[in-house]
Amino acid sequence: MTYCAALKLEKGLVFGSDSRTNAGVDDIATFRKMKIFEKSGERVLVVLSSGNLSITQAALTMVEQRFHHWEGGETLLSTPSLFDAARILGETLRDVQLREGPYLVQNNIDANASFLLGGQIQGEEPRLFRVYSQGNFIEATWETPYFQIGETKYGKPILDRVITSDLSLMDAAKSLLVSFDSTMRSNISVGFPIDILCLEKDAFSTRLRWTIEEDDPLFRILGREWSEGLKHLAAGLTGLPPPGSGRDRGLS
Amino acid sequence: MTYCAALKLEKGLVFGSDSRTNAGVDDIATFRKMKIFEKSGERVLVVLSSGNLSITQAALTMVEQRFHHWEGGETLLSTPSLFDAARILGETLRDVQLREGPYLVQNNIDANASFLLGGQIQGEEPRLFRVYSQGNFIEATWETPYFQIGETKYGKPILDRVITSDLSLMDAAKSLLVSFDSTMRSNISVGFPIDILCLEKDAFSTRLRWTIEEDDPLFRILGREWSEGLKHLAAGLTGLPPPGSGRDRGLS
Repeated sequence: MTYCAALKLEKGLVFGSDSRTNAGVDDIATFRKMKIFEKSGERVLVVLSSGNLSITQAALTMVEQRFHHWEGGETLLSTPSLFDAARILGETLRDVQLREGPYLVQNNIDANASFLLGGQIQGEEPRLFRVYSQGNFIEATWETPYFQIGETKYGKPILDRVITSDLSLMDAAKSLLVSFDSTMRSNISVGFPIDILCLEKDAFSTRLRWTIEEDDPLFRILGREWSEGLKHLAAGLTGLPPPGSGRDRGLS
Repeated sequence: MTYCAALKLEKGLVFGSDSRTNAGVDDIATFRKMKIFEKSGERVLVVLSSGNLSITQAALTMVEQRFHHWEGGETLLSTPSLFDAARILGETLRDVQLREGPYLVQNNIDANASFLLGGQIQGEEPRLFRVYSQGNFIEATWETPYFQIGETKYGKPILDRVITSDLSLMDAAKSLLVSFDSTMRSNISVGFPIDILCLEKDAFSTRLRWTIEEDDPLFRILGREWSEGLKHLAAGLTGLPPPGSGRDRGLS
């Protein structure tokens, strides 16, 4: 399994990804799911991967090979918009699925794979896309300013309640780390290190990047602060009214 | 879908269940998932249901029919322990699965069904069981003081972080409601009314019972207090260290 999430905020984009890959609980390995494509001062594109590793790795490698051996067509480093970059990534994923998928499916191996693609190209605003296993894709809007892939459910409530588009990148990154903590407490197939990257709007820089290992004191501190804060918050919630004030017929 | 959860605390048990049943998103209905079996001053047993409604309804009805037409054997109202009650419920579920299951499975209809069974019988401590679709069951211990069935993931992080066995029943009930709020924000197949029941240890009473409808101001207040509290809490978390202090090679 995997957990990756990306947030689209007014001040830029925030990305987070775990690094665990598993085939069953007795075969786990560390593969990082964040890949950065950069052209200094002109574009930064970030891809987060989820699903079958042989599919996502092959697609990303083919995207990279285009940089060197591609005649005449666009690549992630030359295309004029993020939309076209999502199309290139989706088409490459389709090529891999067509070639590899049937061999996996006939052995009941899950060939699903998906990507989050975000970043900024000079002349555009920062943009964020979700590329599905079939190569089609959607873009994040201000109504739903984040995407998740992989084991998404445990970490969703905090994002739903805390992330608003006016949040600072640093505050969003902290909340994203709590979302990872919530996920990793319940799904052992999501694992360290966690990669966090903040892309400031118009900065075209990958400077704000952290790799958080299992023994990182920050992660433990955040998890403890969050848990203690929640206990305190829960204790202070408005109490229930006197019992029986609602409709309670029909249960016994 | 469904969301049900039950908590085992030092002071007693807390139960919560939603009331939505659906066959696809275009066929939803209201069926409450909490059923109480009571013998005044001597025992209270509570069953929460998840899964195929025709299976869970049939099993519970057969459990009830035993009260009137059962010669010589034990029933939920006569058995001397909760363990035996869980066995009776599991065996009844097996009977229903044997009779109904094959007809559903051959039409690709999910026949899975499961129960949470908790309560107290005079002479025992309060106990809590989870009965699986195959009729086998497990009991909650102090290490894992709660069970969930149905759409469990969205509402789990709050329970993991807030519920400790020394919590008061009322505080636990409030946190359980937040867990329902988190779930219902993300899964529309979990719906109102929510039934909440607190069983105080040694009280053998179902007095502490609430049915929360969609327009209940309490639920809206709790949801708002929680969201605002989380935003405040997130803003006050310890900040990230200077970027690049961790290992960040290998991403680009």
